[in-house]
Amino acid sequence: VDGGASNASELDSVLVVGAGLLGTSIGLALASVGVGVHLVDSEPKHLHAAVERGAGRVWNGADRVDLAVVAVPPRITAELLERLQRLDIARTYTHVASVQAHVQAEVEARRLDLSCVVGGHPMAGAALSGPAAASADLFTGRPWCVCPLSESTAEAVADVWALALAVGGAPVSLSAAEHDRAVALVSHLPQIVASGLAGLLTDPVALTLAGPGLVDTTRIAGSDPDLWTDVLTANAVLIEPLVGRLIAALQELRSALADPPSPARDAAIHGYLSLGRAGRGLVPVKRGSGSAAFEVVQVRLDDRPGELARLLSQASDLRVNVEDVRVDHLEGRPHGVVSLSLTPGQARHLAASLAATGWTVER
Amino acid sequence: VDGGASNASELDSVLVVGAGLLGTSIGLALASVGVGVHLVDSEPKHLHAAVERGAGRVWNGADRVDLAVVAVPPRITAELLERLQRLDIARTYTHVASVQAHVQAEVEARRLDLSCVVGGHPMAGAALSGPAAASADLFTGRPWCVCPLSESTAEAVADVWALALAVGGAPVSLSAAEHDRAVALVSHLPQIVASGLAGLLTDPVALTLAGPGLVDTTRIAGSDPDLWTDVLTANAVLIEPLVGRLIAALQELRSALADPPSPARDAAIHGYLSLGRAGRGLVPVKRGSGSAAFEVVQVRLDDRPGELARLLSQASDLRVNVEDVRVDHLEGRPHGVVSLSLTPGQARHLAASLAATGWTVER
Repeated sequence: VDGGASNASELDSVLVVGAGLLGTSIGLALASVGVGVHLVDSEPKHLHAAVERGAGRVWNGADRVDLAVVAVPPRITAELLERLQRLDIARTYTHVASVQAHVQAEVEARRLDLSCVVGGHPMAGAALSGPAAASADLFTGRPWCVCPLSESTAEAVADVWALALAVGGAPVSLSAAEHDRAVALVSHLPQIVASGLAGLLTDPVALTLAGPGLVDTTRIAGSDPDLWTDVLTANAVLIEPLVGRLIAALQELRSALADPPSPARDAAIHGYLSLGRAGRGLVPVKRGSGSAAFEVVQVRLDDRPGELARLLSQASDLRVNVEDVRVDHLEGRPHGVVSLSLTPGQARHLAASLAATGWTVER
Repeated sequence: VDGGASNASELDSVLVVGAGLLGTSIGLALASVGVGVHLVDSEPKHLHAAVERGAGRVWNGADRVDLAVVAVPPRITAELLERLQRLDIARTYTHVASVQAHVQAEVEARRLDLSCVVGGHPMAGAALSGPAAASADLFTGRPWCVCPLSESTAEAVADVWALALAVGGAPVSLSAAEHDRAVALVSHLPQIVASGLAGLLTDPVALTLAGPGLVDTTRIAGSDPDLWTDVLTANAVLIEPLVGRLIAALQELRSALADPPSPARDAAIHGYLSLGRAGRGLVPVKRGSGSAAFEVVQVRLDDRPGELARLLSQASDLRVNVEDVRVDHLEGRPHGVVSLSLTPGQARHLAASLAATGWTVER
């Protein structure tokens, strides 16, 4: 091994520390491509569940591996990296912390050998938690941020890059600062906005008039405050100016709202809303395998068992592939509206066929 | 008619001015219960479409009715109320404006006979627009705010109450100020929050790391800036202090984020998030006919045509009523996760049956 920027890293054995959603999913994915996975977790129940699911075998505490992956809460990540390195059990060490610079600073403060340490953060869904929710393809096609330290050797970086590829991810090389700036904007700020709005919802009478807009805008305000306190404090330096920019925009809007009616006042409010619409246009809403925008067909659905299945069976019989389904019920209404997202070119055909067989197609 | 607070109002004939989503839906709903509906719209295409759909017959400009409903944009609502009243064509006049006090003040300034005017606002979905999107049960079970003026007679209030009931709505009596305060919180502030967040999304690199949290939080930022400029300016006086409260909360959080690490700093951030979670707990998320919380079963779904239909057919065969469906795809991943919301007591049965027939049940 010459330390060049080679992608030819071979991972034969990996130690995964922490058998939660991410650790167990890494184990399952690596095991499925033939990498030898060792697992350890301070919680025997989790370790047992992960092993049962086939994510690897219990680490004996001595076997040396090519790569050690620390998949534990960010608070204790640096400490575990240090303890593992003292045991000298791996060629390369990485982690999966959602904030990078913070962990990196702690690692540096602990006087580890930094040449064999590389940060990492898979951008994978975490609505579920624990080993039971893990899956071998949690990372397939998702970005996996690889964040080298300035001291990291090319060999160490190649090992983490190889990990991302082995689990089906799309490795992206970013500095810790770049990573933390990006997640501050697309992940941490939305949490703050949703929580701030929801925090003002103390009027039960007003809430009886609430509709789907409020429901969606506050969804992530239901997240775990313990977990998010850790995340926000760890990335506070980069989040704080974004909150400042949001406050400045809100203050401008507030000042316009307080102005007497005038074309300039209306233009300020319109500008605020238009900027928001432009930003929304950049959000990658369309997911799934196709990158083209979907067509949507909306169908009225009676609130009876089996209606949704009947609708989708009919779409399936027409060989229309439904990429996404959204059901909107409104309080007390006897029917809902189902929005079917289709790959382009199928909407007209489906809408006509559904209408011809008695469905009410809304558009 | 003695003008007492009677609910015994009889509506035999109604004039609907404006054949958009709301006006046409009102016409369809009234026609379906035998009320004679007259329609008028300055746009002949809309009028034609509404009549074609059975929402009523074209008003001849002279026939007198029990109730005139002005269903046009708020900006021109007061003017139309005045013109109709000059023609003396109805016993009672109402409207459907999304902001009440503003219209009420304009009505008062126009020196109308206020005794026969009552404000109204159906809290019905408006994601779609135009007469084609109208439906006879748009208002079924939804709150219909009835906002009397201080001069409104009890007979006039009873007429509007009767309208709300005739179209299947749930009339709620509120003052214009109470109404406007409620919608400022549950409708207008969420729009401002979503637009403000989305307005900061100018970094395309960061957006490649975006997930479902950002997608949901910014959804309504895609709304029409013209429409929303009208709404926000009309209710500016009540929205402005709410924006002020949001700014104050964000400023406290920002100040905590700028503080050096300490238990007090963490407690402030935790408190902000916890308040948000408590508020989110008050949002009426569960809709449809049942008021009990749903159980959720999550199932892995291969990205192949017909899989969703097959899953729902199987649920239907088991006589499990699926109240809601959510499909989460993630970029490039070969499968999605389907979340099925069920009325309580069915989840265990469904999960076991699905698992036994080869589905991967996530929990």
